[in-house]
Amino acid sequence: ESSAKIIDGKSVAKEIREEIAAEILRMKESIGIVPGLAVVLVGDRKDSATYVRNKKKSCEAVGINSYEVRLPEDSSEQEVLKYISDFNDDPSVHGILVQLPLPSHMNEQNVLNAVCIEKDVDGFHPLNIGRLAMRDREPLFVPCTPKGCIELLHRYGVDIKGKRAAVIGRSNIVGMPAALLLQREDATVSIIHSRTKNPEEITREADIVISAVGQPNMVRGSWIKHGSVVIDVGINPVEDAKNPRGYRLVGDVCYEEASKIASAITPVPGGVGPMTIAMLLSNTLISAKRVNNFK
Amino acid sequence: ESSAKIIDGKSVAKEIREEIAAEILRMKESIGIVPGLAVVLVGDRKDSATYVRNKKKSCEAVGINSYEVRLPEDSSEQEVLKYISDFNDDPSVHGILVQLPLPSHMNEQNVLNAVCIEKDVDGFHPLNIGRLAMRDREPLFVPCTPKGCIELLHRYGVDIKGKRAAVIGRSNIVGMPAALLLQREDATVSIIHSRTKNPEEITREADIVISAVGQPNMVRGSWIKHGSVVIDVGINPVEDAKNPRGYRLVGDVCYEEASKIASAITPVPGGVGPMTIAMLLSNTLISAKRVNNFK
Ligand SMILES: NC(=O)C1=CN([C@@H]2O[C@H](COP(=O)(O)OP(=O)(O)OC[C@H]3O[C@@H](n4cnc5c(N)ncnc54)[C@H](OP(=O)(O)O)[C@@H]3O)[C@@H](O)[C@H]2O)C=CC1
Ligand SMILES: NC(=O)C1=CN([C@@H]2O[C@H](COP(=O)(O)OP(=O)(O)OC[C@H]3O[C@@H](n4cnc5c(N)ncnc54)[C@H](OP(=O)(O)O)[C@@H]3O)[C@@H](O)[C@H]2O)C=CC1
Repeated sequence: ESSAKIIDGKSVAKEIREEIAAEILRMKESIGIVPGLAVVLVGDRKDSATYVRNKKKSCEAVGINSYEVRLPEDSSEQEVLKYISDFNDDPSVHGILVQLPLPSHMNEQNVLNAVCIEKDVDGFHPLNIGRLAMRDREPLFVPCTPKGCIELLHRYGVDIKGKRAAVIGRSNIVGMPAALLLQREDATVSIIHSRTKNPEEITREADIVISAVGQPNMVRGSWIKHGSVVIDVGINPVEDAKNPRGYRLVGDVCYEEASKIASAITPVPGGVGPMTIAMLLSNTLISAKRVNNFK
Repeated sequence: ESSAKIIDGKSVAKEIREEIAAEILRMKESIGIVPGLAVVLVGDRKDSATYVRNKKKSCEAVGINSYEVRLPEDSSEQEVLKYISDFNDDPSVHGILVQLPLPSHMNEQNVLNAVCIEKDVDGFHPLNIGRLAMRDREPLFVPCTPKGCIELLHRYGVDIKGKRAAVIGRSNIVGMPAALLLQREDATVSIIHSRTKNPEEITREADIVISAVGQPNMVRGSWIKHGSVVIDVGINPVEDAKNPRGYRLVGDVCYEEASKIASAITPVPGGVGPMTIAMLLSNTLISAKRVNNFK
């Protein structure tokens, strides 16, 4: 008796990857250029290695060249900066990702700031965030996860203009840029965070809810306004003895409850998750098109 | 029977100018350096000339050296850029202002972007706005008018953390940075603009209201929650036959009504207005201290 339409991020992401692959083919055939994404991985964290491997596979599947540098845990910041500088200068590289976290002896901000803004496909550079915040300015890249959230709203025909939106969470990589994006599309945005006293009341007024908190099942059915659209960014492991891994992944939103009240909702997994990497591919293509002035 | 405390921006601004003058004296006596502010004025608009004259007088009153370049209306963008570049290189200049609007044959963004970020005492550079938006980053300068609003809240002992705030207006120079500043201080912020459907409802939920719209008396008493604090940035001329000039200035907020319901409110004039220029002096001092590493 769940009434909400399920926003199927997995299938939308597939659709987008197909569109990207077609564009890349068109570019290749018309100007002989293929987009390239470089990833810098320092140390040997298993989870980071997995992420990098997945990005590589996704790149290959759409025809993006992927470049990879793996450096040992005890590399110096200097060495990492050297590789970034080489990628900055390399015209076949259109996007550069530094896989986080870096080893603790490195200054993360220094390293991230070394990526030139034209190749900052993550869109995290302050200059880019500033442009995102400002009227009449255009960011070079929109950060991938929030871009994926908005893209889901667009593809499901959700009106944003004039609607009330609640964004739960204000991190630099998800919540804050998601709020800026909704505002750029003329939503009236309220931003909820850990110091907010009545998150449920504010959320209950929203036509669109984007949650990026990291608290399993925090957003209950009673927080949701009838007919609203819910985008759940959270990916949170909870213990589950029945699962062979001993855990399963849930969102910030109590899906069972919320799906009875919302008009549309993203599942976890299979909602925003697959969109993030699709948007990374999209940003890399945008970068390659821009630098080659390919329309 | 007005019950609200009047937030006296005029007297707070005076207090701040005195503090700034004392700091400048201390710096001069200890390292022999005096802050300098350069203003570039193009064309001969009367209002612009008046603003520039006032800034100059305010600088002199606190001991800031002021430099001025006046260029004819038909100057080229190149010439303006040349002066900005000279000021960028001049170590006795710690802040550079370009008086807007520029003649229509110039590209405003080009000209503003030419001011080096270390001397951008207006705080409007996108890199600066990006840092303002981001957690764990610090802007070099906070834009003057929103900084003045927050300073008034601080000096009147208004708690911000955990409070609900409504910012009406989202311009690059007032509304948007005011919202970012309130959020940095852990308010829960809702941003209202011309596409917002129910501005009065949202405003009525706020403990702190900052209005920067430019619509005389738009915010009625019925929009205000009992006991809230109201900061009215609007400066709007309305016809007034009794006034020798034929008009008088009013805010965005209907003062007569709101002052009966709010716990504290800024008047117009005499509220935020005098704070803006005090914050410009403050930013210039901050710049001179920073570059000379003077604590
Ligand atoms: N789908 C995807 O591809 C991605 C998913 N994620 C997932 O999204 C979630 C958020 O990630 P991220 O933004 O990086 O997390 P952060 O930890 O950086 O930020 C969490 C935000 O939530 C706020 N918050 C924490 N507790 C509460 C609470 N009880 N009530 C209201 N707000 C609260 C914090 O507030 P304050 O600022 O006050 O501390 C903070 O702003 C995680 O589950 C993460 O795994 C993240 C990135 C990509
Ligand atoms: N005290 C001082 O020193 C200063 C005072 N001011 C004064 O502050 C006011 C605002 O200035 P500024 O920010 O530059 O103005 P802008 O015109 O740049 O921005 C006005 C903002 O108000 C919004 N708005 C317009 N009409 C409505 C409405 N009916 N309901 C809700 N929102 C509305 C607009 O929305 P949208 O984005 O959708 O168009 C816009 O975001 C003016 O009166 C100005 O004179 C300004 C600077 C300094």
